[in-house]
Amino acid sequence: MAKKGNIIVGQSGGPTSVINSSLAGVYKTAKERGFHKVYGMLHGIQGFLDEQYVDLSTQIHSDMDIELLKRTPSAFLGSCRYKLPEIHENPEIYEKIFQILDKLNIEVFIYIGGNDSMDTIKKLSDFAIVKGHRQKFLGVPKTIDNDLALTDHTPGYGSAAKYIGASTKEIIRDALGLTYKKDMVTVIEVMGRNAGWLTGATALARTEDCEGPDLIYLPELVFDIDKFLKKIKDLLKKKSSVVVAVSEGIKLEDGRYVCELSGGADYVDAFGHKQLQGTAAYLAGFVKNEIGCKTRSVEFSTLQRSASHMASRVDINEAFMVGGAAVKAADEGDTGKMVVIDRVSDDPYMSAAGIYDVHKIANNEKLVPRNWVNREGNYVTEDFINYIEPLIQGDYQPFMVNGLPQHLVLRR
Amino acid sequence: MAKKGNIIVGQSGGPTSVINSSLAGVYKTAKERGFHKVYGMLHGIQGFLDEQYVDLSTQIHSDMDIELLKRTPSAFLGSCRYKLPEIHENPEIYEKIFQILDKLNIEVFIYIGGNDSMDTIKKLSDFAIVKGHRQKFLGVPKTIDNDLALTDHTPGYGSAAKYIGASTKEIIRDALGLTYKKDMVTVIEVMGRNAGWLTGATALARTEDCEGPDLIYLPELVFDIDKFLKKIKDLLKKKSSVVVAVSEGIKLEDGRYVCELSGGADYVDAFGHKQLQGTAAYLAGFVKNEIGCKTRSVEFSTLQRSASHMASRVDINEAFMVGGAAVKAADEGDTGKMVVIDRVSDDPYMSAAGIYDVHKIANNEKLVPRNWVNREGNYVTEDFINYIEPLIQGDYQPFMVNGLPQHLVLRR
Repeated sequence: MAKKGNIIVGQSGGPTSVINSSLAGVYKTAKERGFHKVYGMLHGIQGFLDEQYVDLSTQIHSDMDIELLKRTPSAFLGSCRYKLPEIHENPEIYEKIFQILDKLNIEVFIYIGGNDSMDTIKKLSDFAIVKGHRQKFLGVPKTIDNDLALTDHTPGYGSAAKYIGASTKEIIRDALGLTYKKDMVTVIEVMGRNAGWLTGATALARTEDCEGPDLIYLPELVFDIDKFLKKIKDLLKKKSSVVVAVSEGIKLEDGRYVCELSGGADYVDAFGHKQLQGTAAYLAGFVKNEIGCKTRSVEFSTLQRSASHMASRVDINEAFMVGGAAVKAADEGDTGKMVVIDRVSDDPYMSAAGIYDVHKIANNEKLVPRNWVNREGNYVTEDFINYIEPLIQGDYQPFMVNGLPQHLVLRR
Repeated sequence: MAKKGNIIVGQSGGPTSVINSSLAGVYKTAKERGFHKVYGMLHGIQGFLDEQYVDLSTQIHSDMDIELLKRTPSAFLGSCRYKLPEIHENPEIYEKIFQILDKLNIEVFIYIGGNDSMDTIKKLSDFAIVKGHRQKFLGVPKTIDNDLALTDHTPGYGSAAKYIGASTKEIIRDALGLTYKKDMVTVIEVMGRNAGWLTGATALARTEDCEGPDLIYLPELVFDIDKFLKKIKDLLKKKSSVVVAVSEGIKLEDGRYVCELSGGADYVDAFGHKQLQGTAAYLAGFVKNEIGCKTRSVEFSTLQRSASHMASRVDINEAFMVGGAAVKAADEGDTGKMVVIDRVSDDPYMSAAGIYDVHKIANNEKLVPRNWVNREGNYVTEDFINYIEPLIQGDYQPFMVNGLPQHLVLRR
């Protein structure tokens, strides 16, 4: 058997609690399968173009380091939001990438990321095939948003959902304790521009010891602010603490984002996405003005994607699994593919890694199906909850040092 | 020995992660010391005036329930923000309270709360002494704000500090991963109207695996927005991700709150406190406009006081201890007192319950001493960190049910 060359792995897009568990899975399987060196590109393809990379064996020295990496949030290697141009627009950039790959004797290129990252895998594998380059390109899914097609769910989603469920329970309890003979409406804002997977996860708080949120609004459906207000008024006749969860991206019928009603500034990121903020703050102010009761807004903000101290064991394990599966697939000759998670069984929950053509995945956004939202459009259904519940089970105890969770840090 | 009568306990003010651990301590010690019934008033003195109470033995059935109660955030009995009038203003309300106490054969009244709650203990014990009532009144400290005088620290503070330290680490990592060749300023807003104890706790994130926040601004010192901006500009010359922690209550030299600069609405609560919001959001917008870089604001909001899933073991144990100590003190004849925590030793950390006259405590606010903030007024000192570090140590594993922390709920 010919001696194997090297492998390189990068991370891209928004961080999650478990993106490093996929990195750990790539590293461990690559070593087990006899790849010579495992390189990590720093800040994804953007850093790679600047020849920013490390030999991961200088960072990971033991099984203990691998366990620590699995418990470390955000991209260990650094991330980027960098979209490759179309091949015909700028072939030079592709030539440069392959020059660096050849120089480093790279045989396998693995990219951990979301929709935009799968676009990178698609373009690079297309270019390699057309030009006859030997490298294999494999994608590993990652996004708290859970909006990737063809995979049952994405690594990162379960942990974000677990954090959202636990924090929603805590917020509901906090409000309950404070509402004697006075009304209060709490509006929780959850990430999700177009997909309501994360906002729906607030329904997990409906447990034997908690009523859960009263209303849940996803961005897939038009938000009717008059119906919303009426619903709140009705609820306040029966209970003094009302808790509502909304996606940052909910929109009115005329297409305006609710957060735009506040007249606040809009920001646009590198991909042309509007940067939203203030949906919950706006609605809390609106309810206060209309009803006169006390209101409060809570944004989970970046905590929902980096709270590795509340990560799900199922999620960390699956993230590790898909990292390893990508190496295995590439080693067996696949390219231009993304690893997916197939749900093998619901009860007991079992999953396995599958593999799909990345052309079918890239730039497709998976939304919450209409029949997983109730008829009134203000709560998710049992089917939604049954889908998500297995994904938040179990935990990995953080490694606590001086009272705080310890993380693995890149040393240069 | 004469047979003992009953005891009643209430909770008041803003919730914490460990206020129920004090309740558990009161219950356990009261039972051990032979009190007949342990009542819990619902929603503090306000509910008590409506004769809202429960026999706690109908709620707590086992040692397992006590352990669950210790892990349950927010006031199990419900809280209130209700300030008793001065005795001469409304003696009838006092007569009514003592009628109910006598009817229930109460010998000991224990109130778990902050400054305003200690005012209640003071007034009731004064009234009892003047009128010759037999009941004893004891206060148990509780506040995440850590602003009570004479106690080394308050139960609730350590857990809030631990959550803030851990979340700050996660936010810093999140930002680091995203700032390749571009600058970003993150502004974290922490609770604290007048006292900077919680905001200073962000410094805990400065560990061997994290640089910690770059700047910390407490409300004890005047906030100079020009110096702040210059400092950010200087930092951005050296690093691409700058993280700043600010108290919600920071003020300009002219006395205006920074959040007032946004022109937002002011709310006033039952005690006449201004309800602040938007300090971080305002500063993030300000920096964006002045420097042009990407900015982000994060508010820990209610999560910092109810995230029992990250509570500190030291804090839960001390909260339990002071609850029990209040029962013991009352049982031995004390009244008009508050239990305090004395720091017996720093290394190894040891603490013990002490007892103080509540007249010396009520309505006094303990602020961060000037010499625990650096000369420039933009970071806390080693002394501050050494003070707080023992308080965040250890944890109680949450009881996880279906993937989420379980809580004990009041059943009526």
